[in-house]
Amino acid sequence: MPLLIVGSVALDTVKTPTEEHADILGGSASYASVAASFFEPPQLVAVVGDDFPERHIEYFRSRKIDLTGLQQVPGETFRWSGEYMVDMNQRQTLSVALNVFEHFNPTLPDDYRTTPYVLLGNIAPGLQARVLDQVEKPKFVVADTMDLWITVAREDLMNLLPRVDLLVLNDSEAKLLTDTPNLIKAAHLIRKMGPRYVCIKKGEHGALLLGDPSEDEFFSCPSFPVANLLDPTGAGDCFAGGLAGHLARSEQPTVTFAELRQAIVYGSVLASFNVEAFSLERLRKLRPAEIEARYAEFQRISQF
Amino acid sequence: MPLLIVGSVALDTVKTPTEEHADILGGSASYASVAASFFEPPQLVAVVGDDFPERHIEYFRSRKIDLTGLQQVPGETFRWSGEYMVDMNQRQTLSVALNVFEHFNPTLPDDYRTTPYVLLGNIAPGLQARVLDQVEKPKFVVADTMDLWITVAREDLMNLLPRVDLLVLNDSEAKLLTDTPNLIKAAHLIRKMGPRYVCIKKGEHGALLLGDPSEDEFFSCPSFPVANLLDPTGAGDCFAGGLAGHLARSEQPTVTFAELRQAIVYGSVLASFNVEAFSLERLRKLRPAEIEARYAEFQRISQF
Repeated sequence: MPLLIVGSVALDTVKTPTEEHADILGGSASYASVAASFFEPPQLVAVVGDDFPERHIEYFRSRKIDLTGLQQVPGETFRWSGEYMVDMNQRQTLSVALNVFEHFNPTLPDDYRTTPYVLLGNIAPGLQARVLDQVEKPKFVVADTMDLWITVAREDLMNLLPRVDLLVLNDSEAKLLTDTPNLIKAAHLIRKMGPRYVCIKKGEHGALLLGDPSEDEFFSCPSFPVANLLDPTGAGDCFAGGLAGHLARSEQPTVTFAELRQAIVYGSVLASFNVEAFSLERLRKLRPAEIEARYAEFQRISQF
Repeated sequence: MPLLIVGSVALDTVKTPTEEHADILGGSASYASVAASFFEPPQLVAVVGDDFPERHIEYFRSRKIDLTGLQQVPGETFRWSGEYMVDMNQRQTLSVALNVFEHFNPTLPDDYRTTPYVLLGNIAPGLQARVLDQVEKPKFVVADTMDLWITVAREDLMNLLPRVDLLVLNDSEAKLLTDTPNLIKAAHLIRKMGPRYVCIKKGEHGALLLGDPSEDEFFSCPSFPVANLLDPTGAGDCFAGGLAGHLARSEQPTVTFAELRQAIVYGSVLASFNVEAFSLERLRKLRPAEIEARYAEFQRISQF
């Protein structure tokens, strides 16, 4: 079933202790859309400038991503630059240039308005809400967020949360949002803010999914061993994209907890591939059979 | 089959943001022995002073722990004092008084010398080696260690590692020992130092077990959700004790990787109970049926 993804499309400059790459394809919607495309080619809602390389558009097209909702406007594409430390869990943002993103007003093409699955990729919660305003009764809404919005746009985020079925955020963000150091308590508190389900990503340590406690809806997703981590950029976006893509490809009338567990593992699989190279280079070469093999590997390493 | 546990027996003073308890039963061997006793009552090798409360001795005895190897000598019992921050992952040691532990020379009773399973609880690696010297061809040796020994007794530790089947240590210790931030790489490097298996404990994030890569021996143990963490002291010792106890109760001729996976989950189960109260208070009330129920819960929350 159709899946809509809104977020940023960016040109990133990424520095790690061993390599540096300038103006490479990045942005939450780029990563999420390509990851989702392995399961359900999504409708992409985003904006780029007139400097955005045609080859990236072609790449999206080759992944069967619907680009009717991708606005191309005069000006420069959104740019982000960051540096990773020797411990790749440590990242420093070096610069952000919003450029065409500053006046981005997401307007949905008519045939996106009845799309049942929606992934609100990591952008300002006000923009995420504006997208949701244009969708008629979506079946399942996944939203991602980040520490910046929790700090500078908390009210917008709090208004958005009751409209979200699954909120995805990382461990430090969950602690920041709830001001509690215990992740289990934090997940319970976030559920009370509105979302039916909360997924806390823990980077190399896997992820947690919390639903209705009275239904025993809890999933502890194992971590996958990545020995050759080259660039963590976009891991969270690929996670959200893979997750939403898996949900969208299902033909079930409602999203079950069992399906959500699988979606989280598929999201983890996509993320684990993505960090093996810079930008979307690893996903560019990824074959569906590799995804299924790693999913099986996830099962093998975590069963007892 | 018999299991020998060496380590410290201590009187702890533990402070958390909400409570403080003075001179409560603690020490690596206390926690490990009580945890193991749910599966295989161990032989305890340790030392206490003449101030050690008789009621703790009686408690050990009630757990069917063999106390022939517990020396009681003139002087004061080993004392440790620590404080946990609001984020309970943060701990500060306030004081350490070795007391009778300073001149502890572990001497094994004759009938301990053929014990097949050995858990070298967290004490100086020189002392751990001296215990191992006295055991004839043990079947399986588990060793725990800590950052202090990695820093101040590295040579002793490096000499011990080739004699160990399974080294258990936490994530920050694994990084310290190998000077690498990636836990998977760290685990591989530690295996090259000697132990057949390496288990990296990640606190609230579960644990990793690495064996022979050519045999695909890798296990990612899920984390268990503990919302009401009261006192993390002894969690690692209960983990090691539960793990070793489960291995010892098996009647299998060799320790298989499948059995090790289960042992790690049982260790996690014991640790997850222990942190629900101070000292050994939770384990005091623990019923075997609760252990099996939580083991099943571990399976339920991590399957997909």
